[in-house]
Amino acid sequence: MPIYKAPVEDALFLLNDVFQINRYNNLPGFADATPDLIEAVLGEAAKLSEEVMQPLNRSGDAEGCTRHDDGRVTTPKGFKDAYRQYADGGWMGISAPAEFGGQGLPETMTIVVNEIMAAANMALTMYPGLTQGAIAAILIHGTPEQKAAYLPKMIEGRWTGTMNLTEPHCGTDLGLLRTKAVKLADGAYKITGTKIFISAGEHDLSDNIVHLVLARIEGAPAGIRGTTLFIVPKFLLNADGTLGARNAVSCGSIEEKMGIHGNATCVMNYDGATGFLIGQENRGINAMFTMMNEARLAVGMQGLAISEVAYQNAVAYAKERLQGRALAAPQFPDKPADPIIVHPDVRRMLMEMRAFNEGARALVVWTALQGDVEHRSPDEKARQAAADHMGLLTPVIKGVLTDQGFANAVMAQQVYGGHGYISEHGMEQFVRDARIAMIYEGANGVQAMDLVGRKLPRDGGRALQAFFGEVQGFIKDNGSDAMKPFVGPLGAALGLLQQATMWLMQNAMTKPDNAGAAATDYMHLLGRVAIGYMWCRMAAVAQAKLANGADQRMSAKLVTARFYMDRMLPDTAVHLARIQSGAASTMELPVEAF
Amino acid sequence: MPIYKAPVEDALFLLNDVFQINRYNNLPGFADATPDLIEAVLGEAAKLSEEVMQPLNRSGDAEGCTRHDDGRVTTPKGFKDAYRQYADGGWMGISAPAEFGGQGLPETMTIVVNEIMAAANMALTMYPGLTQGAIAAILIHGTPEQKAAYLPKMIEGRWTGTMNLTEPHCGTDLGLLRTKAVKLADGAYKITGTKIFISAGEHDLSDNIVHLVLARIEGAPAGIRGTTLFIVPKFLLNADGTLGARNAVSCGSIEEKMGIHGNATCVMNYDGATGFLIGQENRGINAMFTMMNEARLAVGMQGLAISEVAYQNAVAYAKERLQGRALAAPQFPDKPADPIIVHPDVRRMLMEMRAFNEGARALVVWTALQGDVEHRSPDEKARQAAADHMGLLTPVIKGVLTDQGFANAVMAQQVYGGHGYISEHGMEQFVRDARIAMIYEGANGVQAMDLVGRKLPRDGGRALQAFFGEVQGFIKDNGSDAMKPFVGPLGAALGLLQQATMWLMQNAMTKPDNAGAAATDYMHLLGRVAIGYMWCRMAAVAQAKLANGADQRMSAKLVTARFYMDRMLPDTAVHLARIQSGAASTMELPVEAF
Repeated sequence: MPIYKAPVEDALFLLNDVFQINRYNNLPGFADATPDLIEAVLGEAAKLSEEVMQPLNRSGDAEGCTRHDDGRVTTPKGFKDAYRQYADGGWMGISAPAEFGGQGLPETMTIVVNEIMAAANMALTMYPGLTQGAIAAILIHGTPEQKAAYLPKMIEGRWTGTMNLTEPHCGTDLGLLRTKAVKLADGAYKITGTKIFISAGEHDLSDNIVHLVLARIEGAPAGIRGTTLFIVPKFLLNADGTLGARNAVSCGSIEEKMGIHGNATCVMNYDGATGFLIGQENRGINAMFTMMNEARLAVGMQGLAISEVAYQNAVAYAKERLQGRALAAPQFPDKPADPIIVHPDVRRMLMEMRAFNEGARALVVWTALQGDVEHRSPDEKARQAAADHMGLLTPVIKGVLTDQGFANAVMAQQVYGGHGYISEHGMEQFVRDARIAMIYEGANGVQAMDLVGRKLPRDGGRALQAFFGEVQGFIKDNGSDAMKPFVGPLGAALGLLQQATMWLMQNAMTKPDNAGAAATDYMHLLGRVAIGYMWCRMAAVAQAKLANGADQRMSAKLVTARFYMDRMLPDTAVHLARIQSGAASTMELPVEAF
Repeated sequence: MPIYKAPVEDALFLLNDVFQINRYNNLPGFADATPDLIEAVLGEAAKLSEEVMQPLNRSGDAEGCTRHDDGRVTTPKGFKDAYRQYADGGWMGISAPAEFGGQGLPETMTIVVNEIMAAANMALTMYPGLTQGAIAAILIHGTPEQKAAYLPKMIEGRWTGTMNLTEPHCGTDLGLLRTKAVKLADGAYKITGTKIFISAGEHDLSDNIVHLVLARIEGAPAGIRGTTLFIVPKFLLNADGTLGARNAVSCGSIEEKMGIHGNATCVMNYDGATGFLIGQENRGINAMFTMMNEARLAVGMQGLAISEVAYQNAVAYAKERLQGRALAAPQFPDKPADPIIVHPDVRRMLMEMRAFNEGARALVVWTALQGDVEHRSPDEKARQAAADHMGLLTPVIKGVLTDQGFANAVMAQQVYGGHGYISEHGMEQFVRDARIAMIYEGANGVQAMDLVGRKLPRDGGRALQAFFGEVQGFIKDNGSDAMKPFVGPLGAALGLLQQATMWLMQNAMTKPDNAGAAATDYMHLLGRVAIGYMWCRMAAVAQAKLANGADQRMSAKLVTARFYMDRMLPDTAVHLARIQSGAASTMELPVEAF
């Protein structure tokens, strides 16, 4: 049975010491987030995740969801009760506005809590995760009446939400979608069509399911600018807000898939279902993007979450499995063999996971705080800078954290050898679950194109210049001998990133394929540099804390930072080489030669 | 439903054009392998794999194997008939000696055929694959009586074989094994113990199962030098060679696991089973190594096999799935969208798989031919050089081809987006199946240690020096302008490999952890260079053929070779950087800090 211990100490180190959340106390909700409160919230989240959600992870995978002949879907044993505890604990709305029943805490808190929940049980956590995305969309785009009707119930967790974009013939290219909306006399719409891959589309956890559905109004322009977002509740609401008639939306089937078996991935049939416009006509994609950006950050966090839990299990196994002897001399001569953690190749895998997890967590917390600034700051310039940061780093976090999160789940499984391949230890489930995060909410290649094609050039490259400026400023301000082993490699890697950027500016305008062929490498190059910057910031804080007395955790931070510089940051050079090779050999083969 | 077309043309290009198998006609069996015969054999293999084995791949995964209460194991529907066709076609023994019913063809032919079979159905192909390993061990270590008793039936495919090493507490470190052998008055042994993860340990495909079991004779020295190999048949043989009494070996359970569900992974209980010594007492590991080396090459080939079939399906999907538009301008304006193969990031993935598959196949064929030289040449020096080559490259092929084969299965799945995550298209099965190849027959970290710790230093580094010499010789002999784009990058990469080797020589003797921490990177560095060398050899042949007239396949070879140089060979630099960073930051953290 896999273990999991929520990384509360590490989160507190980031929130309190590295990013000093108290510096943001001028923002609404932040003053409430005192160190004591943060620690208490994370402690409770840890308890729920470790004691309630994690024990259901393997059984939920083995049992999966069941669709009954009448279209009902049952979640695995225990999910309903665990979800109830989650909702009753107020977790859905810890960052939601108080006027709708939320606690108004920083969004950063939700993101940190969601890592903990997803690590314990990714499939289960997806039900509230999608609801939080739907809440965000209704908060921004809903009418006051819609907010009043839906948000309190959703924030309370009595109702859940979904996102309905994909159709059989269209995923990335939503302009192709065919689901039809016909305006009715009363101002509502009749929605007809089929949506696929709808996570949490139907289940038994909540009294109502609020579907957000992208559709095309009759006569709308072709393509993405002819799509509109609708609220389509499973049960229509009576005038008093109570549940009324069953709407004409149903789950046609649930997919057999590689993992996240505890989450129902549904084919949803809209058979003239009643829908309500949210946002403006033909501007559906704008409304959807609100959800998608929140969701992309959350999905990146899932990559980290699985990497963390997989790492913890790999460490436990590496300490306990006796096999072979240390290369120089036996470490435990009284035992029949040494624990495999003595082997450098096992250590290499553990350290790579560790360095990624701690660095990626810092990147997410840093970015989540910028998200709060974007949404809550009274200062327009601060909001803009934060929005730039979010725009630039959201695709990086989504793409890099899920790619490496999956790779780390594979690595953790490798530490177990054959025992990792059988289901018993749960390691192969981590691999199967982590895999989806590279695909949904925009496949990682799409994230890379979003970064290179949209986020880099936007506003004359302002976001990237600000990132460069911040990293360079840090390097300049931290030139002490003690910091050189960290900022030295970071500066070199930043130089490679700047070369790559320059190459794109010079070569991608005239030949867009050069950008397309570079995109994934650029995303990973930027990710390596950004996490390298995080390691430098953590190293600086760790050194300051160590100056005030020994602290094994802070010493470990410095070793792990060095490992990152030695073994992970050098990847930047090969990304640059690939980028600079251009698109020629990638694109030259005629299609029929494949 | 996945597709598969055996890469017969590519295999013929390698056998006939690149490695010119007719140059080996002095070796036994090679003269029979005329171009016509090779083409006919591969054509028949293609037919069996495409028409019989591949259609059972998904259903076999979905159904899996069933253990009945009486210990019998049933394979998925259709496997028995398909296996019968395989056996009746003589495939088990195409390279086995004629005196035992084989066809005596080069072992290279078996290896090429096995790629084709494994791509079509890895789980099914494992049953004969393990049998071929057992045949090899009995051929080398068995007594004349043992050979006569077992080999004809096994080569005929009426009996199958297995390899029993792993126990619950020991995998890599076989010195810890506890299975006990007690000598009986008649010279046989009584075998008692439990073996786990035994592929094809019990099933309904064959009349008898010949288990090769590693055990410890009472009173034997502790550790690996106290282990002995035994033949333990499921049914004992009567004096006339017919099947006699059921032996006391049984399948206690079959494992639930991530993939290869069509192959029964068994816990095997030996309850005082009758076993027969094969090879010498306490030299079991030597005998086992014979099987393991054959098996490691075969497992490397499995990585390639899955990569090939996954690639073919990704290509088909990329040509047919319409989504988005080419970056510069629409390619198919009459269609609602362009096929995704126009997108550079999709191309990048297809080209990386393609460049790996064709290069890795060359590496395997090159090495397989050396295997034949090692076993069949009358010239001792040639045999020694070939043995050096095999020793050096077997762990590289096992480790690199399975790591990248798995990565490619993941990449092919990524091309499908969400459709790759659901079971319907079979892409997620490729990922689950490919995963085991990184683990069994020695986890890839063990391959890397075998390479760096044993194969490099052996005989003063003779094998590696020969490899360097051959590559350098080729570069020198192919300095034409046309070849420069290929041999130039290869020469640079070879230089990095030599630097890495030098670093190891200078730093690993005094501090073995430096070797351990470098091992995986060194293995991949050597793999990248070796496949780069293969691409140079293929490019030279392709240019010569193109000089004799246009040939789209040969033009494609040159583009793919350039892609390899542009996008894959640069990895060598980061491997070197990681190696040269040493073991310090990898090993510094105290165990309790994890």
